[in-house]
Amino acid sequence: MKARVFVMLKNGVLDPQGEAVRHALGSLGFDGVEGVRQGKVIELDLAEGTSEATVTEMCEKLLANTVIESYRVEML
Amino acid sequence: MKARVFVMLKNGVLDPQGEAVRHALGSLGFDGVEGVRQGKVIELDLAEGTSEATVTEMCEKLLANTVIESYRVEML
Repeated sequence: MKARVFVMLKNGVLDPQGEAVRHALGSLGFDGVEGVRQGKVIELDLAEGTSEATVTEMCEKLLANTVIESYRVEML
Repeated sequence: MKARVFVMLKNGVLDPQGEAVRHALGSLGFDGVEGVRQGKVIELDLAEGTSEATVTEMCEKLLANTVIESYRVEML
């Protein structure tokens, strides 16, 4: 079974990587890009029967820095 | 309006970052993690009326390295 974890910087946390992308899109002539935030997707290939709670624990312990990042778990 | 772009390494392309996460999860006692692939999510805040085709063009030109990465666009 598979799970997907999305990790994004919390609102209000400065995102220089996203800012760089926004700037680069502007330079390439894409107008109207008002904001860009960049985050991570982590696709996990798990043993059958792994619970969502286990994946949440992985997020808390390793995958996300919960001080500045929020995460969302999606079981597939 | 918003759009979300998912960028993942293509199958067969080595993903050392994902491999490091898999190893770290094992060290933390999470068994049964058979594989991990790490990718990017890019959330774009766009001017009203921006088409999906424009976002696809952004992917082709900047957001994804199409030699080794695949992408998926989601309009919100």
